Amino acid sequence: MLAPIKHLLSNYRIVLASGSPRRQELVQMLGLNAELCPSTFEENLDVADFKEFSDYIEATALGKAEEVFQRLSGVDDSKKLLVIAADTMVTLGKEIYGKPKDAADAVRMLTNLSGACNRVFTGVVFKHALGVRKFTETADVYFGQLTEAQIQSYVDSGDPLDKAGAYGVQGPGGALIRRIDGDFYCVMGLPLNRLCCELNKLFLEDLN
Amino acid sequence: MLAPIKHLLSNYRIVLASGSPRRQELVQMLGLNAELCPSTFEENLDVADFKEFSDYIEATALGKAEEVFQRLSGVDDSKKLLVIAADTMVTLGKEIYGKPKDAADAVRMLTNLSGACNRVFTGVVFKHALGVRKFTETADVYFGQLTEAQIQSYVDSGDPLDKAGAYGVQGPGGALIRRIDGDFYCVMGLPLNRLCCELNKLFLEDLN
Repeated sequence: MLAPIKHLLSNYRIVLASGSPRRQELVQMLGLNAELCPSTFEENLDVADFKEFSDYIEATALGKAEEVFQRLSGVDDSKKLLVIAADTMVTLGKEIYGKPKDAADAVRMLTNLSGACNRVFTGVVFKHALGVRKFTETADVYFGQLTEAQIQSYVDSGDPLDKAGAYGVQGPGGALIRRIDGDFYCVMGLPLNRLCCELNKLFLEDLN
Repeated sequence: MLAPIKHLLSNYRIVLASGSPRRQELVQMLGLNAELCPSTFEENLDVADFKEFSDYIEATALGKAEEVFQRLSGVDDSKKLLVIAADTMVTLGKEIYGKPKDAADAVRMLTNLSGACNRVFTGVVFKHALGVRKFTETADVYFGQLTEAQIQSYVDSGDPLDKAGAYGVQGPGGALIRRIDGDFYCVMGLPLNRLCCELNKLFLEDLN
């Protein structure tokens, strides 16, 4: 997907402002040579300050991107710097589901998600010396009906504890979900098709 | 997802009638202790002989399951035998897209899939001493618009050559797809949520 800009990418130092092994795996799958650099940006924005939910998510991603960009810019200027940041949130009705506080919180979330449709938002920000490009993708995730034993067994596996909404689509959590309307990789934390389309535009339009 | 039947599974020798490393990976993700045993069933049924497309796919999966069941039953009867077989097909309009014959055929398929919606069918069959259970899942896969360079680069990666429809969703091919309406794992070759639901029913209803 990045074939049209392959010759341009090598002029850039590309940094993923994330410590997520899932996002790293996805970026590597694209053949994109990106370093991981987790941001120290404190994710404490108030959703009530934003008109659209996507604005809120993109603001969090922007905070991460700008912090990493500021920290790294000037350190090595043999290559131009591009920072990619992403933020993923799960919503059920009007409630935002972040990472569960503990196993009991994971059970609570999964009990609510069972048999229902949750919406996942992933906002992505590109930060470079000339400016910023941002977008948000959404996907609707339909859980099957889960029994208490199924929820408890999944929580016992430890898989839900570091994940927004207390589930991951790419591991054993994938079996809990009967359908996704949208991009699977948006739910996993980085919408690959849109990311590639926007990277192509970034290099062929903004940075040319 | 298999927590309700965990105590029953250990009485069975479970065999996946497949040589697909993707299906093996998925089954392992469920914590299901299944052996791989590729079927020698010749996949040459004529779609014109079937009223519904799902009947055609399930007949192919049944052919694989029965061949493996027949070959293995009686060999080791310390455990009861359950054979799971699956078959995945990609359709675009009325055309069936199997595995591409060569790189040029992969380019042809991907050129047709670009910007369009293809439908993936995965049929699954359980074969055991008391009978058979079968089902088919479908998912709609929306490709982004691809350039010739993007298609050529993906074909050059070798990824499409062993896959129905000349793409895989779980590798670099995932970036070609802008959305899936349905189960991602149906597209990957084994619809996990439905598989678990049907396995639970099989053990709690048919085999009890």
